[in-house]
Amino acid sequence: MSWQTRFQKIRSNKVFETFIIIIIMASALVVGVKTYDLPPLVYQILYVLDWMITLIFVIEISIRFLAEHPHRNFFKSGWNLFDFTIVAISLIPIENTDMALVARLVRVFRVLRMVSIVPELRILLNSLVIALPRLGYVMALMFIIFYMYAAVGSLFFAEINPVLWGDIARAMLTLFRVMTFEDWTDVMYETMTVYGFSWLFYVTFIFLTAFAFLNMVIGIVVNVLEEQHEAARDADPNQVSIKQLHEEIQELKALLEQQNRSR
Amino acid sequence: MSWQTRFQKIRSNKVFETFIIIIIMASALVVGVKTYDLPPLVYQILYVLDWMITLIFVIEISIRFLAEHPHRNFFKSGWNLFDFTIVAISLIPIENTDMALVARLVRVFRVLRMVSIVPELRILLNSLVIALPRLGYVMALMFIIFYMYAAVGSLFFAEINPVLWGDIARAMLTLFRVMTFEDWTDVMYETMTVYGFSWLFYVTFIFLTAFAFLNMVIGIVVNVLEEQHEAARDADPNQVSIKQLHEEIQELKALLEQQNRSR
Amino acid sequence: MSWQTRFQKIRSNKVFETFIIIIIMASALVVGVKTYDLPPLVYQILYVLDWMITLIFVIEISIRFLAEHPHRNFFKSGWNLFDFTIVAISLIPIENTDMALVARLVRVFRVLRMVSIVPELRILLNSLVIALPRLGYVMALMFIIFYMYAAVGSLFFAEINPVLWGDIARAMLTLFRVMTFEDWTDVMYETMTVYGFSWLFYVTFIFLTAFAFLNMVIGIVVNVLEEQHEAARDADPNQVSIKQLHEEIQELKALLEQQNRSR
Amino acid sequence: MSWQTRFQKIRSNKVFETFIIIIIMASALVVGVKTYDLPPLVYQILYVLDWMITLIFVIEISIRFLAEHPHRNFFKSGWNLFDFTIVAISLIPIENTDMALVARLVRVFRVLRMVSIVPELRILLNSLVIALPRLGYVMALMFIIFYMYAAVGSLFFAEINPVLWGDIARAMLTLFRVMTFEDWTDVMYETMTVYGFSWLFYVTFIFLTAFAFLNMVIGIVVNVLEEQHEAARDADPNQVSIKQLHEEIQELKALLEQQNRSR
Repeated sequence: MSWQTRFQKIRSNKVFETFIIIIIMASALVVGVKTYDLPPLVYQILYVLDWMITLIFVIEISIRFLAEHPHRNFFKSGWNLFDFTIVAISLIPIENTDMALVARLVRVFRVLRMVSIVPELRILLNSLVIALPRLGYVMALMFIIFYMYAAVGSLFFAEINPVLWGDIARAMLTLFRVMTFEDWTDVMYETMTVYGFSWLFYVTFIFLTAFAFLNMVIGIVVNVLEEQHEAARDADPNQVSIKQLHEEIQELKALLEQQNRSR
Repeated sequence: MSWQTRFQKIRSNKVFETFIIIIIMASALVVGVKTYDLPPLVYQILYVLDWMITLIFVIEISIRFLAEHPHRNFFKSGWNLFDFTIVAISLIPIENTDMALVARLVRVFRVLRMVSIVPELRILLNSLVIALPRLGYVMALMFIIFYMYAAVGSLFFAEINPVLWGDIARAMLTLFRVMTFEDWTDVMYETMTVYGFSWLFYVTFIFLTAFAFLNMVIGIVVNVLEEQHEAARDADPNQVSIKQLHEEIQELKALLEQQNRSR
Repeated sequence: MSWQTRFQKIRSNKVFETFIIIIIMASALVVGVKTYDLPPLVYQILYVLDWMITLIFVIEISIRFLAEHPHRNFFKSGWNLFDFTIVAISLIPIENTDMALVARLVRVFRVLRMVSIVPELRILLNSLVIALPRLGYVMALMFIIFYMYAAVGSLFFAEINPVLWGDIARAMLTLFRVMTFEDWTDVMYETMTVYGFSWLFYVTFIFLTAFAFLNMVIGIVVNVLEEQHEAARDADPNQVSIKQLHEEIQELKALLEQQNRSR
Repeated sequence: MSWQTRFQKIRSNKVFETFIIIIIMASALVVGVKTYDLPPLVYQILYVLDWMITLIFVIEISIRFLAEHPHRNFFKSGWNLFDFTIVAISLIPIENTDMALVARLVRVFRVLRMVSIVPELRILLNSLVIALPRLGYVMALMFIIFYMYAAVGSLFFAEINPVLWGDIARAMLTLFRVMTFEDWTDVMYETMTVYGFSWLFYVTFIFLTAFAFLNMVIGIVVNVLEEQHEAARDADPNQVSIKQLHEEIQELKALLEQQNRSR
């Protein structure tokens, strides 16, 4: 048995997979525990654990890389590339340099390896990503609404409260806040002291975004239901349509009429 | 008539059932009334009422236990076990000990007996519980998103506000708060004074969780509609599919062709 | 032409109906204008207008009462009874007595006559009211959840904040507030200073109510879609089911087999 | 080739269209950048850019006007009229007069030209506008609920907090705030100090509006699904209904019975 076949066997082994999932969970736990104030001893243990996890990840990635035939195919999958990058960066000794924060961030992102390992989660994330483009134009329209209201807002209210309306970026953040209904009346009452009718600005904005959002949701529901209908139709190639029945009955009729004539 | 048959008659008696429902309501009322400041006399009455309710419950459970054949089957139902435990604990005289709080809590849980008695509520609760597993992977993905954002949050913001971001548990609670839009801008503006771009952290988090939540809801709606379709199909065993019609017409055609040939 | 026929003609006259709708709008406007600080002259005019509106309503109700045959049928419709009561009460001269507030309230309720006059609004309100019972058991379950959490809440937190958790009624109002996410973290952080794990109380409550609410919404959507399907089926009495086709084809087969045998 | 044909060629040219979209984006960017504090030089550049954009818009509108045959048809499209008005107003030299604010507002509205240029966005906006009327009666009912609660609110609470309940307009704004759950408990607790049972006012209002809103959403979903069904049915004119099959089988039966009789 060649080495490659052996690696392939390990890779598709259920025990190996479960072990890696447990290691990812352990790595997530280490990340979580580190956020607490810990006695030096525990911190030392965590440090060792961390390097053991990194080591196991290196071995795992190596096995999956060597099992792939040809090897360069390994990098054709986005998830493999993601796994490789995360593990490679965590190997660089930047713990005690200025970049220590990056090292800790990479350890956090190791939790995402859960998605790349568990197929069901990968499918779920893919379906979320696939759903995004069909929102494209609604998102564009939403952005135009936001941009225009932000421009008007920063034009009129910039001097009333520069923190909220100082420039277009701040104004858009403030409008996002208004859309989530977060203390939006505080924002409104402040501008109403100067412009008495500014409640129109907020109320129309809330109506517009709520209405656009509602249409987006309904659009997605209808889309999903349609896709399901088509999938159900395509799934059963043996399915007979009412139109086929119609043609079959026409054939019967032709047969009968032929009988009548030939008599 | 044996005792067991008699008990079974009582158990399935509509008047008995209604009486128990009224007693459960009374027990709920007693729990509610006790939260008010009351004159000693009323408290005395409530105390007596409480023991009367407990007594009635003991008798009821006994009847239902003795009616079951064989008796041990009684404990095979989760709801019976729940009823028995609640009534048994309320019999223990812990009112005036350190455990008095437990005794009062058990009395609160007696309200849940309403669900175990009224079949419609039991079915409703069951259907809620059954709906949970199909949310499994979305919940897992949500948890991963929460965990990662909480890890990043407590990494960067722990020193800004230890109450909100001190450790990963607090950070997750804070993120849950952000997801419910509860004063999330207060949380954001605080961290923006140190990290100017931390609004990206909150806005992306809100988008991710809102999007995952939306997909979850749509997934449930589609699932429920599908189940209904299947249930409707399975409900009528006499129902004829279009495919069956197709086969029947084929038979007719065979008969006709046979006629033509035999002539 | 009898008087009754004449009244019936007036009642079903489009101009008369439009005139009454305009008068109801005027009455709504008078109610609205009165909430502003007004010069005495305007108030005098409003007073006159008010009595004119009442007079027109009295005449309208009289016409509709006299047009009904027999007259007592008029009171068989709930909306007619509502109209009559509202108009009758506004005739009682209680403007300057202690009951002046009631008189003003009755004038507000005159706006509701819009619903009793415009058929489309009446249908809409009816459909809302009809939708309520099917929510019955979910509402009951929600109430049980609320009641239990309120009992537990007032048991533990009554001494921390008596205004929010003093008795079961206050606790239920506080929980309603938590369900709407309104400053729920303020409520939580207060109790967390005493009971560190009380966040579990709030988070589980939010999950439970959100989940029950979601199931309620989905239940309504499915119900409405089902009703529509049935309505579509019932609407066309001539519609042929696939099962009927099956029986017809069976008849054809019998005819053909009879032919074969008779030959 | 006539001038008109040449203009029509330019108008339908893909490069020309893309160029105009880029110019609209640039105009949006200029509007955004202007909200920041800028050194005088940048402001000078923006001023020049602004006039260049206006010039390009004038040329573009002229081309599209001259390409139309006959020219007056150009003004029959609402979007063309909108484009023309926006560009015409930005030509008026009001920059340094009292009307400078209007000039800046017009520049903000130029962003909306994006919708008039990109067909997909125009279709989306049209579908949003078309969806509005079917909400007509629900909106009317909502308004009646709002108006009545506002009248009652300003009747009872005007003296408690004139800013929130002073007149019917303020009361409606306050109720809109309550509907968005924005600090609604602050509003409630204030009135509860005077009228202990005023929580009933708020809770019933929230239930009513939430219930009406829910019914509106469900109504839209059902409407959209129905439209889709009908569209699917109309799309395939060759489609055979089950009823047609029934008639065809009846014909077959007639043929067969005729055979039997003629024998």
